[in-house]
Amino acid sequence: MQELIYALEFIGLMAFAISGIIAAKAQEMDPVGLYFVACVTAFGGGTVRDLVLDNHPVYWIQHQEFPILILAVAIVFAYFRNTSKVKESHILIPDALGLAIFSVLGTKLAVDIEMSPFIAVLLGVMTGTVGGVMRDALCNEIPYLFRKLQLYGTCAFIGCWLYIGVLEITEQEILALWSSFVFIVVLRLLAMRYDWRLQKPRN
Amino acid sequence: MQELIYALEFIGLMAFAISGIIAAKAQEMDPVGLYFVACVTAFGGGTVRDLVLDNHPVYWIQHQEFPILILAVAIVFAYFRNTSKVKESHILIPDALGLAIFSVLGTKLAVDIEMSPFIAVLLGVMTGTVGGVMRDALCNEIPYLFRKLQLYGTCAFIGCWLYIGVLEITEQEILALWSSFVFIVVLRLLAMRYDWRLQKPRN
Amino acid sequence: MQELIYALEFIGLMAFAISGIIAAKAQEMDPVGLYFVACVTAFGGGTVRDLVLDNHPVYWIQHQEFPILILAVAIVFAYFRNTSKVKESHILIPDALGLAIFSVLGTKLAVDIEMSPFIAVLLGVMTGTVGGVMRDALCNEIPYLFRKLQLYGTCAFIGCWLYIGVLEITEQEILALWSSFVFIVVLRLLAMRYDWRLQKPRN
Repeated sequence: MQELIYALEFIGLMAFAISGIIAAKAQEMDPVGLYFVACVTAFGGGTVRDLVLDNHPVYWIQHQEFPILILAVAIVFAYFRNTSKVKESHILIPDALGLAIFSVLGTKLAVDIEMSPFIAVLLGVMTGTVGGVMRDALCNEIPYLFRKLQLYGTCAFIGCWLYIGVLEITEQEILALWSSFVFIVVLRLLAMRYDWRLQKPRN
Repeated sequence: MQELIYALEFIGLMAFAISGIIAAKAQEMDPVGLYFVACVTAFGGGTVRDLVLDNHPVYWIQHQEFPILILAVAIVFAYFRNTSKVKESHILIPDALGLAIFSVLGTKLAVDIEMSPFIAVLLGVMTGTVGGVMRDALCNEIPYLFRKLQLYGTCAFIGCWLYIGVLEITEQEILALWSSFVFIVVLRLLAMRYDWRLQKPRN
Repeated sequence: MQELIYALEFIGLMAFAISGIIAAKAQEMDPVGLYFVACVTAFGGGTVRDLVLDNHPVYWIQHQEFPILILAVAIVFAYFRNTSKVKESHILIPDALGLAIFSVLGTKLAVDIEMSPFIAVLLGVMTGTVGGVMRDALCNEIPYLFRKLQLYGTCAFIGCWLYIGVLEITEQEILALWSSFVFIVVLRLLAMRYDWRLQKPRN
């Protein structure tokens, strides 16, 4: 179980870090800016959650391997990757992975310390979305979360309820984790593919 | 006393949430964006104050009725209210109420744990203004607090000192609460009505 | 030792506060805005570090003399200084001082509580840069840290490693403090003078 969570965290952190690096690169930031945005995107949601829950030490202080790894990734992207081919849309897949993983893990953590379901879902959605909101704010874009885009926060919101429902019924944490994780990724990808929205844009 | 404070918090939270929804709506955000901005505006100031004071659990984790209620309000505004009539100026009255309530309650809380007066006033002004600053930052506007507008933060600053003064002299907490609350709302409304400013705008 | 640190903190806080006031003034903010930006710039990095490390009470709550002093400085700048002569470049010297002081002190604090070196350096750079990033975000500029400018965060990053190296070798904290402080200021000033960058801007 611990290994599964560690592996998921690893994937989620890398996915968010890379989405941050791509966004920063699109703004022509320098390597330090890339690293800063990558760390904020990767650790932002979890740090805010840990602070709100008074959960210390916060995640990345205990796991220095992650900030070191992200530094390496940022250097590679800064100096060795051709920037001209990076498009905004390249963010979307890693961003969907990060969103799903951190929303579910945030909900799990809140359920484990016996938060009420609605608060656990809110904390999950917060864990999954705040890093991306900070990334977009630092890169001077209107955050994805707020645009009349295809479903984004909504995927996380429904998926976190799914985690709580499956856990309640089956009492199998791993089943709850996997089903809500897969649900969020698939719903997000389908929403992008078929242009599902909560409201039509006015144009 | 507890009931009065709960009632004031309720009014302040709703006022700030509605100001957040109006601001987000003016940016044509979707329902999830509306809810996010509403929560940040309503809970932002209090959460930052609680974190700085190491005051756990933070307010909204203990009171899940408020985030649920704000969700309902956001859905109503998103789908049932005609957006075309919403103007920026509609923010100003709920914003003034929220500013007054949270500045005074923030100062009270800091005085109760025996902070020095200047720090208590700073924490009060912070509690009252940070939610609105975050709202305006998320909606890509220059925060009200910072424009050469009619008195805003200044109303809260003077009102918080009034709370401390009245409490010191009369030792009646309720009197101090009410007098500083009414003072801030009236001063803010008068400042808007008669265009009082700390500095003239340059042109 | 305590006196030296207090004196450095005093200089760093004033330097960052003044850089915040200059930036806010360039945006024609009113006196309340000036004070808010000055406080955020001066206390932002240290507050985030204290929250992340669960280090309470946070710095400025224990030292109310600093927010009071910054209020006086903000009033002087708001009413008595001719604004027309203030240029953006006037920020750069106080900003370099603040960057150096808070990066080194942040690293020292993290080393004192036995954080691993990489995390201590990250916390140091965070303490030194977050206030400035918040200042620039509030003033609607692309943060200095992120522009393809002359070395900025990099100076702090190298300087914090220097602190750890000197401390490791000599075990003299004062020597480590001074050498890394001087190193960061000199490197930053040289980088500005001779236009050293991590990457060439594209045009």
